Amino acid sequence: MAVIEIKIELKKGVADPEGKNTKKTLEALGFEGIGEVKAIKTFVVELDMPEDKAVAAGEEMCRKLLANPVIQNYSVTVR
Amino acid sequence: MAVIEIKIELKKGVADPEGKNTKKTLEALGFEGIGEVKAIKTFVVELDMPEDKAVAAGEEMCRKLLANPVIQNYSVTVR
Repeated sequence: MAVIEIKIELKKGVADPEGKNTKKTLEALGFEGIGEVKAIKTFVVELDMPEDKAVAAGEEMCRKLLANPVIQNYSVTVR
Repeated sequence: MAVIEIKIELKKGVADPEGKNTKKTLEALGFEGIGEVKAIKTFVVELDMPEDKAVAAGEEMCRKLLANPVIQNYSVTVR
């Protein structure tokens, strides 16, 4: 049993309204010194297979369903 | 300048429809051996302060804005 973590984030240059608005709201609440805020989607998936196969399966999941390659990058790691 | 990663996930026992539907769809696409799928929200925040202060600030951000303590746990790590 392997547990993988799939992170899907926007490519550089793609607008991230969720991150921007989160930053704005944090500043409105009085937080200081905030640079960029990025919002990332993460999936944690349990897979009944060895770790190397699980990472390969996670990458295929991104290609087939989870990520939009036009605007998103993905990374898969064993947890 | 510190970069922190804030992970917000649902507490055990709280329904995770996004995770469940992702699992169902992956299985419909032919992926096998999938156990639980969890959907997690991650924020990456750049902060102009030392790392220990940045982690404390990240935890306060969760308490004040980002997380709902009734249904969500959060964790803050330096990236």
